[in-house]
Parts: sequence; structure tokens; C-alpha cells
Amino acid sequence: MDNIRVVYYEEPDFESPILVEGLPGVGNVGKLAAEHLVEQIKAVKFADIYSKFFPPQVLLDDEGVIRLVSNSLYYSKGEGKRPDIIFLTGDYQGLTPEGQYELSDFVLNLAKEWKVNLIFTLGGYGIGKMIEKPRVLGAATDSQLVEEMKGKGVVFSKGEPGSGIVGASGLLLGMGKIEGVKAVCLMGETSGYFVDPKSARRVLTALCAALDVKIEFSALEDKAAQIDKITSRFKDIEKDLSDSKADDLRYIG
Amino acid sequence: MDNIRVVYYEEPDFESPILVEGLPGVGNVGKLAAEHLVEQIKAVKFADIYSKFFPPQVLLDDEGVIRLVSNSLYYSKGEGKRPDIIFLTGDYQGLTPEGQYELSDFVLNLAKEWKVNLIFTLGGYGIGKMIEKPRVLGAATDSQLVEEMKGKGVVFSKGEPGSGIVGASGLLLGMGKIEGVKAVCLMGETSGYFVDPKSARRVLTALCAALDVKIEFSALEDKAAQIDKITSRFKDIEKDLSDSKADDLRYIG
Amino acid sequence: MDNIRVVYYEEPDFESPILVEGLPGVGNVGKLAAEHLVEQIKAVKFADIYSKFFPPQVLLDDEGVIRLVSNSLYYSKGEGKRPDIIFLTGDYQGLTPEGQYELSDFVLNLAKEWKVNLIFTLGGYGIGKMIEKPRVLGAATDSQLVEEMKGKGVVFSKGEPGSGIVGASGLLLGMGKIEGVKAVCLMGETSGYFVDPKSARRVLTALCAALDVKIEFSALEDKAAQIDKITSRFKDIEKDLSDSKADDLRYIG
Amino acid sequence: MDNIRVVYYEEPDFESPILVEGLPGVGNVGKLAAEHLVEQIKAVKFADIYSKFFPPQVLLDDEGVIRLVSNSLYYSKGEGKRPDIIFLTGDYQGLTPEGQYELSDFVLNLAKEWKVNLIFTLGGYGIGKMIEKPRVLGAATDSQLVEEMKGKGVVFSKGEPGSGIVGASGLLLGMGKIEGVKAVCLMGETSGYFVDPKSARRVLTALCAALDVKIEFSALEDKAAQIDKITSRFKDIEKDLSDSKADDLRYIG
Repeated sequence: MDNIRVVYYEEPDFESPILVEGLPGVGNVGKLAAEHLVEQIKAVKFADIYSKFFPPQVLLDDEGVIRLVSNSLYYSKGEGKRPDIIFLTGDYQGLTPEGQYELSDFVLNLAKEWKVNLIFTLGGYGIGKMIEKPRVLGAATDSQLVEEMKGKGVVFSKGEPGSGIVGASGLLLGMGKIEGVKAVCLMGETSGYFVDPKSARRVLTALCAALDVKIEFSALEDKAAQIDKITSRFKDIEKDLSDSKADDLRYIG
Repeated sequence: MDNIRVVYYEEPDFESPILVEGLPGVGNVGKLAAEHLVEQIKAVKFADIYSKFFPPQVLLDDEGVIRLVSNSLYYSKGEGKRPDIIFLTGDYQGLTPEGQYELSDFVLNLAKEWKVNLIFTLGGYGIGKMIEKPRVLGAATDSQLVEEMKGKGVVFSKGEPGSGIVGASGLLLGMGKIEGVKAVCLMGETSGYFVDPKSARRVLTALCAALDVKIEFSALEDKAAQIDKITSRFKDIEKDLSDSKADDLRYIG
Repeated sequence: MDNIRVVYYEEPDFESPILVEGLPGVGNVGKLAAEHLVEQIKAVKFADIYSKFFPPQVLLDDEGVIRLVSNSLYYSKGEGKRPDIIFLTGDYQGLTPEGQYELSDFVLNLAKEWKVNLIFTLGGYGIGKMIEKPRVLGAATDSQLVEEMKGKGVVFSKGEPGSGIVGASGLLLGMGKIEGVKAVCLMGETSGYFVDPKSARRVLTALCAALDVKIEFSALEDKAAQIDKITSRFKDIEKDLSDSKADDLRYIG
Repeated sequence: MDNIRVVYYEEPDFESPILVEGLPGVGNVGKLAAEHLVEQIKAVKFADIYSKFFPPQVLLDDEGVIRLVSNSLYYSKGEGKRPDIIFLTGDYQGLTPEGQYELSDFVLNLAKEWKVNLIFTLGGYGIGKMIEKPRVLGAATDSQLVEEMKGKGVVFSKGEPGSGIVGASGLLLGMGKIEGVKAVCLMGETSGYFVDPKSARRVLTALCAALDVKIEFSALEDKAAQIDKITSRFKDIEKDLSDSKADDLRYIG
């Protein structure tokens, strides 16, 4: 069997499109951001990507009908200043390093066929603690792109992330650079302990500024409020314990 | 060497056959069910499948004669309303995700050659606790099949199994759907702690209703009684402990 | 690069040769036995097998000169009743299941080219406790071979080894059977805690009976005596502790 | 995609060049040594090697511009007695044994194209304790090279390293020997707990003697001093604890 297989439902033409990648990762920030934008601009699914580098698994819908785990491609034709946008999102990244290289190489080849102008990869930057106002950190394939993104509120901070960027969000930049495809990675700060719609919202704000897109954020803000509710309980417990004189209970925290 | 190799002992012709998969998995439910049906309807082995995706291992019979671990194909020609049935059962599933994809793809290609009409995959659904009357949960490649299976006592329950279906029982559905092959998965509820002939019996009851097959269940019921005997000892110990005033012994439970 | 590469130093002709495999494994029984026989009948190395399925490692001789880890092939031309014998021994077995299949398939193809008459694979059967008189258990590709081996003091015991035979010693039988090559596995009982020359000696006794070979065992017996010395210390300590009244020291045992 | 891909910035001609490998490993000794020499003799990067056997990762420079993880090739044309030198250094070794074999085979094929005269591989030899005056141990593809290296202060010590040499530093020797390429491995003793510029300096001293190169070591000595400062704190704490009468605190050490 082929390592990777695409099933097309439509083969649209693109004009200097932008590719936006948002796959699962730290805090699920990239996936949340990409899926929210897909919904808001009513992007249309045109292909599914299957691969033996994904887990051998099917997922069920509410009726009991299955589908094989996949990545999916959506598109939205440009309007006014907004360019054509292609989205890559999905259930999983490749399970092995070699699988991740193969999958990113595959997407990059599609991007070159479509004459993609610029790739945005979206992700989370795990900092190991709760954060009130997550910054959006950036990385890019060249210094001119770095300057452009600074103008959209993206932070470029020496030594952050110190360990570089792993997975599809990194590889599409790294392999893109070798192939002459420009690319930017936008990383929302996140604790890494929960899915983080708040961080996704910040990433999306930066992306929308870069793409000249105007969207509603209420759905994402609702999710963020729900998560805040859950995480605030953890904070309360933590606070109670540290206020408490019941020192012998401390070990719970 | 080839990744997968089939040795045929016979190459039977089939008329719109049904393929039934029952490989090792949670509670060994699928394998127990498939093997019981093979025995009951005196299905005949016509091929062995060997693969480097299986463990590098041979098994011994009672005389000391070995055989390489394998999956095996059996068939039974239809009688009356009962269609031709092909069985896939065996010692192991593929050891790696990639191996599982390769093996399921291989079987699916055979199924397409044989013009298989419908695939049933059999498995267990681990719920982490002992259960008196296991339900048979279902999943299918389309909603019409879902409706048909509801008529055979199969339960389709929103959000169950929440994590989808992994291994051959999932992949044959997922990859079958892409290839236009209809397929149903029948999952017997099981603790997941023991091999579970009782759950296998329930799965088989649903399958036999769907296939218009009438069989004896006594062998399976005997095995279930044996397992019940073993597991009831565990329950007794548990009960004794919870009744006991020897609270300081509780940690054993 | 090729997955497996052979470097030949000589390409001898064989007349219905016997292939004897003794690679590292439980108690190193197979490797010890094969290497002792190689030495005793002055078998000559005629090829080295290198593979990316082995560890990425070189070994040093006493002068500091390296060699890449490998498997090696030796031969000894027949004399009198003794047939031509080819030996396969070496530093490692394949690291992954797939690598083990590839390597055994490779050796089996050579065996077929050489028109090998019979394969003996040598190994240990770990029983998890010290044993005074290790039996030699057997397994074979057909029941006639089983009968023949019974005549050489090899024990065929229902349900032993219960988990079958893994690695090259199993695969050469399993894959050989499919290819029509006869093969026997001889397994010396061993604790599995130490290298076990005593078990290797027993395996070799059975093998020599089957091959009509007469050899000295003193070198192997010396090694066995050394190991006995070490392991007897463990037994002494164990005994002291169980005799001792210092019950509070018992946990050491 | 290709498993390994080279991007050339220049394709220099070489005259019987020496290849020096210094990739990450124990104490990072090899990489530190190779990179220091690259800097000192102003070697020029002429190619980057990318591979799906490396981690799926990009690294960031201080401005936020990324590059895909890689190995790199540098060269320095000979002067006087000093021969042409090619350097192989980089971010990672292959992640899997198979990947390591593939990568070393790839480099060895380049070495043969360039008609490399001799390969030096640099590494650390972890001894599990701090050491004041690390020796430089050697290994080579033939005994004549062993003798030559003894004249450069390299120690060849029977049974050291007992477990052989793993990774690129071993494979380039082992595979080189099979291909008829001469090679030497220089291993600096190191605790294995810290990066070890002191050990790298000793390795480099031996290498420079062999290559007729004269360089400054101050940068490496500065790094060594920094590391000494950190590790001496550990030693102080250890000493305090062993001097202290606070025996109940000992367990900290």
C-alpha cells in the first residue's frame, strides 16, 4: 500500500494561495485555531489524507458511522484583499519521526503544485505554568518575514522556544526553506496542561491581521470560558491549601 | 522478502461472500467468537498468512511439531439463506501501526478480489469492570447498515466507544469505507481483565442473527462457566474483605 | 545500502550439508554450543554477514583493532559418516522483529542454494531456577524428525516450551517448514540468569549424537566449573540466610 | 522522499583529504573538538545533510529565523604539511540503529568519491566518574594505524572500551574497514555527566599532532573552566556532606 493516500472530493484552482496548518499539538492550540477559522470563513473540505503513519484507528460519529483517522484539506477562495486560503488540519500527526518527515514532505509537494505563496503553521508553546495573557511567539524562514510579522503583534524573542519547534509546524518551515517556500510559525503560549482556546484566540488574532480576515471569536471565547472555569477550580484548591493552617494536608498540593 | 506472504491450500470460488474477522484483542472476544463459528459450521482452512509484522516466533503442537505464527483463512459454502462465509482469524495482529495498516490493506485487497459483500469484524469493548449481561455495541461504514444491525440486537450508543476502534477490527471498516466495501464491527462488552467467552457468545448471537446461521453454543458456554468459576473467586475475596471488620486488611483489595 | 550484506572469504562447495545455528539468546546456550563445536572440529570461517538490523557498533580486539558486529559462517567438510557442516554464529540477533524475519529469510535462501539437508538450531529454554541436570528439549518441522531426535536423547514434552520459540532458532524452523527445509531446534534447560556452559554441553551431546561427531568437552566443562563456582556462592548466601535466625535480615534474600 | 538529502553550496576538489567526524555523543566530546578545529582553521561549510532519520525539528537563530536540523560538511585546503581536511559535524546522530547505518553508509560513499585517505572519528568514553587528566583512547581499522597513533600519545588499552564503540564514530570505522577505508577513533575519557571541553581539548591535541596542525586552545579552555566551576560546586557539596557529622543528611549525597 502507499504510505500516504489522498482522496479528493474536488480539485479547486488556486491563485497564489496561503496554506494554514493547524494539527494537534501542545494545548491543541494550532488545531483549535485552524478549525475555528475554517468554520468562520466557511472553508470547504476538498480532500482527506490517510496514512499508515497515523494510528490504526477509526472514529465514530453520533450515529455509529465510522471514519478512518485522517488529516483534511479545506479551502476558501479569496475576497477583496483576502487571498485564497488552504487549510491542513486533522486527527493526528505522524506517529514516528520518519512518518512526520514523510507527511510534511507530502504536504509540501502539494503546496508547490498549488504554487503556495506563504505557509502559516500554528501551534502552542508550552511554558509549564498557567498564564493570563499568552504572547504569540514567531519563527520564520527568513528575516524579512520576521520583520513583517513583528508588525502583526508577533513576538520574536531570542532563545524562545529554546528547543526549537518539533512536528509538522516545524518541518513545514524547515523543509519549506530548503525548497524555497516561505513560511511562518505562530506559537501561542500555553501551560501545556489543558487544551487552550484562549491561546488559540491570540494566535488567530495575529493570523487574521496577517491575512486581512475579519471573524467572530465568540465560539472560541466560550470554549475558553469553560476551560477557565475548570482550571480556576484547580487554582482555588491550590490557594485554599496554601492559605490553610492545615499544614499536614499540604502534601495534597 | 515480501512483507506478507500467503500460502494457499485451496483456491475456492465464492458467491458474494461475507468476510468475518476475529483476531486477538481485548478479552480475546473476537477470536473466541470467530473460532467457535468456524468449528460449528465446519469451515475449512484454505490459506495461511505469514508476515514480518508478526512476532518472530513459532508455536508447538502436542507432538513437538512447530508452525510459524500466522493468520488463517477459512471458508464455508452457503446453505439455504446462509451466504458463503470467509473467516480471518489467527495468532496475532501486526506488532506496529504500520504493520497493522499493511495487513488490513492486504486482507481488503483479497476481499475485493473475492467480491466480498459485507465484512463483519468482531472484538471486545473493554469497560474496566466485571459485567453480568454484556451488550453488543456496533459501528458501521454507513447509516443504513447501522439501522439493519439495530434490528439484530446490536446497540449503537452515542459516544461508545469514545476512543474509536483500534486494530484490524477498526481498519477493515475504515479502509473498507474508502474502498467502497461495506463493513460492520460488533463489539462485546468485557472487563478486559480475562478472556471472555460470555461476551464472545453475545457477539456470536448477534452475528448469527445477521447471517441466518443456527449453531450450538455449549462449547462456548462451558468455557464461560470455567472463567466464571475463576473470576467468582476474585469476587468472593473482594466481598469477604469489604464485609470484614479487619479494616487493616482492606488494602489487599 | 543493502539491509544485509555478506562478505565471502571463500565459496566452498557443499554436499548435502547440515546447517547449525547458534546465536546469542537465553543463557547464551546456542552460541556457546555452536562455538565450541566450531573450535573442536576446526571449522573454517568463510563469510561474514553485516546488517543494519544489528546494533550500530564495532568491537575491539586486544590490540585496539576494530570489527563491525556481524554474524559469521564457518564450514567443516565431512569425514567418514560425518556430513559437511555449516555453522551460523555471531555477536547479535536482529534488533527488531522485522529485522529478525529478514535475517532468517536471508540465511534460509543461502541454505537453499547450498541444498542444506537439515538445519539444527541451538538455544536455551529459560525455566527461572537453577537446575542440576538440564534436559535437552526439542522441536521439529515434522513428526518423523521428532521420532528420530527422541532416539538421540532429546525430550519432546507436551506444552514445553509453552510460549513457543522466538528469534532465529524459531524462525529458521518456521520459515524452513514453509520452504520445505527440514529443521530441528535443540533447547537446553537453563535458569536464564547466567551464561550456561553446562546446558550448552548437554545440547552439544545431543547434536553430536545426531551428527556422528566425536569431540572433547573439557573446555566447555572448565567454563561450566567456573560458572558453578560463581553461582554456588549465591546458593551459599541464600542457604545461610534461610538457616540464620537473623530473621530481620531475610529481606536481603 | 529520499531518506537522506545533501544540499551543496560548493563542490570543492580534494587531494587525498582527511575526514574528521565529530557528532554529538557522550560528553559531546567529539562535537566540541571538531567544531573548535573548524573554527580555528577557518574551515568553510560546503554542504548540509538532511535526513528523516534525524528528529522532526527546526532550530531558531537569535532573530527567529529557523533551519532544519542537519549534519554539515566543512573543508579546509591543506597548507605545508597539513593535508586537505573535511569535517562532518552537526545537531544529531540518526535516531534509530537502521538510521545510523544508513547515514554512516552515506558519508562513507562520499568519502570514497573524495578519495579520502584516512578518517578520524572523535568521541567521548564515559567512565562514570569525574577525572582530572582524561586519557585519549584509540581504536583503528588495522594494527599499523594503531602503532602510528601510539606515537601521538593515543592510548590503546586492552579491554577498553569493553563494550566497543557505538554510533557514527564506530560505524565509520567498521564499515570503512569493509570498504578498505582506513580509519581511527579517538575517544577522550569523560565522566559522561557534563559536556566536557577538557576531554575535547585532549582529543584535539592528539588529532592536531596526527594532522600537523597548530591551533589555539584558549576558547576550549575557557569553556572547560566554566564547566569546572559548575562541577566543582557539586564536589564541594559532596565533600561537605562526607565531612559533616550530620549523618542523617547523608542520603542527599
